[in-house]
Amino acid sequence: MALSEKQKMLSGALYDASDPELVADRTHAQQVMRAYNATIDAEVTVRHSLLDQLIGSYGTPCELRAPFYVDYGRNIHLGRGVFMNFGCVLLDVCEIRIGDGTEIGPYVQILTADHPRDPAARASGREFGRPITIGAQVWIGGGAIILPGVTIGDGATIGAGAIVTRDVPAGATVAGNPARPITTGPTGTAS
Amino acid sequence: MALSEKQKMLSGALYDASDPELVADRTHAQQVMRAYNATIDAEVTVRHSLLDQLIGSYGTPCELRAPFYVDYGRNIHLGRGVFMNFGCVLLDVCEIRIGDGTEIGPYVQILTADHPRDPAARASGREFGRPITIGAQVWIGGGAIILPGVTIGDGATIGAGAIVTRDVPAGATVAGNPARPITTGPTGTAS
Amino acid sequence: MALSEKQKMLSGALYDASDPELVADRTHAQQVMRAYNATIDAEVTVRHSLLDQLIGSYGTPCELRAPFYVDYGRNIHLGRGVFMNFGCVLLDVCEIRIGDGTEIGPYVQILTADHPRDPAARASGREFGRPITIGAQVWIGGGAIILPGVTIGDGATIGAGAIVTRDVPAGATVAGNPARPITTGPTGTAS
Repeated sequence: MALSEKQKMLSGALYDASDPELVADRTHAQQVMRAYNATIDAEVTVRHSLLDQLIGSYGTPCELRAPFYVDYGRNIHLGRGVFMNFGCVLLDVCEIRIGDGTEIGPYVQILTADHPRDPAARASGREFGRPITIGAQVWIGGGAIILPGVTIGDGATIGAGAIVTRDVPAGATVAGNPARPITTGPTGTAS
Repeated sequence: MALSEKQKMLSGALYDASDPELVADRTHAQQVMRAYNATIDAEVTVRHSLLDQLIGSYGTPCELRAPFYVDYGRNIHLGRGVFMNFGCVLLDVCEIRIGDGTEIGPYVQILTADHPRDPAARASGREFGRPITIGAQVWIGGGAIILPGVTIGDGATIGAGAIVTRDVPAGATVAGNPARPITTGPTGTAS
Repeated sequence: MALSEKQKMLSGALYDASDPELVADRTHAQQVMRAYNATIDAEVTVRHSLLDQLIGSYGTPCELRAPFYVDYGRNIHLGRGVFMNFGCVLLDVCEIRIGDGTEIGPYVQILTADHPRDPAARASGREFGRPITIGAQVWIGGGAIILPGVTIGDGATIGAGAIVTRDVPAGATVAGNPARPITTGPTGTAS
């Protein structure tokens, strides 16, 4: 039996984002996000009732500052004590998993969505994704971008503005565009 | 007969952004954007009626995710099938032209607005711009910034977080800060 | 007598952001920002009445485009004629001072908030900050990020997308990730 476009998407195969089931899923997510993005941090009860409709799973406490943008939401799984600052974008065409206590700065982008490199293939309208896994107690500085397929180990530090194209080992610090390992003291440049 | 500040602006000459005609044009754009930025992708009819008031010209389909920010809007010309993800900014003090089927990631900035390099000249309050032209079937990764005067050829790929200071030839792939040509395989680093 | 968490925060010591006084201060700021971020540039009177409740001090004219995000607001001090474009974030756990006539592009981040480099120390929930000082007639290009403790001198130019990890002398131009001095002509790459 043929796979649905959603099954193809979640498995990392080329899929058609204009598929009606996927459009309906995105519409649901955007309706919930519109309500969520009108709230402030202190409105914890309404936020949790909205996150229950939006996010695949999450632990508590969980502080996701508004605005906050996702493609589907259901493919996002967050540990306990995850913090995201203003304006983060999580494009979850494949799974995004984030471990306990990870702190994420403003305007960080976690992008599982990918496109064929060949313009003719892009013109077909088909795209694909690769999952992203981020460990526990990671710190991601403001404006960093995590690219499709990346895994970041526990306790890593990602510098502000880093463009993370490759896996980051547990405990490592990376910065730059593209991100590369750096060494830094307690007042280092990885903020 | 003297040029208006708007004529100076569109021609790339130094102009005064506090000119009443320009202020009125920006107010109009911001009123329409405020309504647009309260919509979701599925609200196609209301979005088109708002884009008709905001954008110089655009083909259909056209999916500009909210929020979306412009200076004037009227100096933006989009082909058919252009897609922009969450949070893009287009500062259109000079013309911005984008070709058919071009896909643009979250928080991409397309900035025609420029300022004198000399602080004393900046203190005069006068500024200027240079047009930006982006071809068809281009893919611009999340968080990339396209600077004044840049032309990007058909089918080019702009890596996530690239700062594009120079023209990009058709079919080329660039990444980095500043953006430079890279070679990449089908699972490359330009996402 | 023991220092309050707020006193520790403002002095640059490790502090607990979950302290009730600090939570109340952030709630106040977010309530005011929510109203502010529904306004447009032409609504000057309502904006000033909201900025009076949000920002430590500011000169006039003052054009802070919405949306605009802060942690507390009260620790921000702006000269006359400061301009910030769409989407700027100022995390003011320590003081942020910006001089007269400084112009700031879209999605610029000014981040005094810092975290321990050691994951075990981060797990304690304690964090710290360092103040940021930006001079007069500075121009900061779109998407630049200014990191904790940085001082930028009068008349400096910060390139779009620059990640500013070190002090910038008066009149200097920096760009890149991390930002480094560059030389540029009147049509240079620092836009």
